[in-house]
Amino acid sequence: MSEKAQGDRKDAAVTIACVQMEPQVGDVSGNIGRSCAKIEQAAEAGATLVVLPELANSGYVFSSRDEAYDHAETAGTGPASTAWSELAQRHGLHIVAGLAERDGAALYNAAAVIGPGGYVGTYRKMHLWNEENLYFEPGNLGFPVFRTPIGRIGCLICYDIWFPEAFRLLAVQGADLVCVPTNWVPVPGQTPERRAMANVLCMGAAHSNSFFVAAADRVGTERGQAFIGQSVICDVSGWPIAGPASRDDEEILTATVDLADARRKRNWNAFNQPLRDRRVDVYDTVLGAEVRPGWF
Amino acid sequence: MSEKAQGDRKDAAVTIACVQMEPQVGDVSGNIGRSCAKIEQAAEAGATLVVLPELANSGYVFSSRDEAYDHAETAGTGPASTAWSELAQRHGLHIVAGLAERDGAALYNAAAVIGPGGYVGTYRKMHLWNEENLYFEPGNLGFPVFRTPIGRIGCLICYDIWFPEAFRLLAVQGADLVCVPTNWVPVPGQTPERRAMANVLCMGAAHSNSFFVAAADRVGTERGQAFIGQSVICDVSGWPIAGPASRDDEEILTATVDLADARRKRNWNAFNQPLRDRRVDVYDTVLGAEVRPGWF
Repeated sequence: MSEKAQGDRKDAAVTIACVQMEPQVGDVSGNIGRSCAKIEQAAEAGATLVVLPELANSGYVFSSRDEAYDHAETAGTGPASTAWSELAQRHGLHIVAGLAERDGAALYNAAAVIGPGGYVGTYRKMHLWNEENLYFEPGNLGFPVFRTPIGRIGCLICYDIWFPEAFRLLAVQGADLVCVPTNWVPVPGQTPERRAMANVLCMGAAHSNSFFVAAADRVGTERGQAFIGQSVICDVSGWPIAGPASRDDEEILTATVDLADARRKRNWNAFNQPLRDRRVDVYDTVLGAEVRPGWF
Repeated sequence: MSEKAQGDRKDAAVTIACVQMEPQVGDVSGNIGRSCAKIEQAAEAGATLVVLPELANSGYVFSSRDEAYDHAETAGTGPASTAWSELAQRHGLHIVAGLAERDGAALYNAAAVIGPGGYVGTYRKMHLWNEENLYFEPGNLGFPVFRTPIGRIGCLICYDIWFPEAFRLLAVQGADLVCVPTNWVPVPGQTPERRAMANVLCMGAAHSNSFFVAAADRVGTERGQAFIGQSVICDVSGWPIAGPASRDDEEILTATVDLADARRKRNWNAFNQPLRDRRVDVYDTVLGAEVRPGWF
């Protein structure tokens, strides 16, 4: 399907699929093959936008910089980018997928955004978690919002969602949907009977920005590091409309939405629209004049 | 108890009490009397910091500007401020209470911060909700953090918590605890079996800023406007350590905490501290260069 054909669609519905799966560190070709099988499966279920976990091509827990480097690829032309782009074209869908990216000597924990017409662009994780700091450079592409025929898409990766600034900056640039490839790890206080704190952050961000959030997590334990699953899709009210998925199993969440709700439903009453209600006058003043770095 | 005596305490524990109650619009003296009775009750239960709901002296749903004006008072010297200050002194405790404040011809939806030594200061709600815009001026005092002998206290009121910027600005100024006098109303998608979205926002903010959040809501229905209760106290992990309270009943939540945890527990691993990990370089760039107000 051409971008024009998709833009001409009378039906504005988008079926989002969050693929919760278990990449295997050290098995790039296996990861690509299994991620493609999942995308095919999602397409058969009607998906028009597929979100894959963080570092879906490489796995997460590297034992060395060399290993990370060997398993990364050039965004847009590497083997995972190519395989995913072929599927996007064949099925007329969009894909947002976590990618270990190599750019010269630099590595980035990235998200590849791909459409039916080819590779759209790259987001590079801005807030690196823990030992990612040993292997990856911090993102240097800001918080881009990709204009696609199905809507405006922003990306955040895992620890990025701990920064409501990031969600907000995507919102004020017009994002209808934030896709979150992620490899969430347990946090203090988490117990099985509690909804994941990561889900709480997605819900709060979707609600307070009045946009959609679709998070695809991984499962399994890799070199001693556990991951928590619980992928989730939240609508503009903030409530999950699919998931949370299980904590342990591979699973595909789907939800059919009208992304235009992010624009239609943001006026909450005659007075309030959360993006317009921001006190940027004072946020700036306070940030400029009052903040004492010594406090933290 | 003098501030010096309190500062000398070896025991750093603070017992927070969130008073969930039902103020009555039009009955200022009754509201003051009943709020004082609740504070006495909280003190008997060991409270050293008491949080009252938004507009605890006046009630919420005004029928006219005149009514709002008549029920407001001068912060620090009006009848509610005076009564609460006497109790704070008598019991050696701190109080954060929602106050309809009159300053000349201007009205503010304010929070009074009171200590054993007297009136400490005022926060004025920065983000006004719905028809509050007909009666109140938007806050003009920024986001102050009050240095008290028990810790650094910030305040937000109701709709303010929909703005993660506000929580963050208190965090970067060193707040250990954010007190939230509130009159939460139902939001779309809310159902009885779901945790209140307002609770989700408190939990996410406590977690991602690693500080305490104590929200005291009202209950009841006033002139057709329902309120949702579910007051809550979250620790630095974000999880509720008291509440959520019921949706309908007056109730006092208490939790004993060490506010210093907000400073001790913010280093999450060898690399990450959420306030230091903020990409202020890029937040500024994006806000300055990329934001097109037309998008929202």
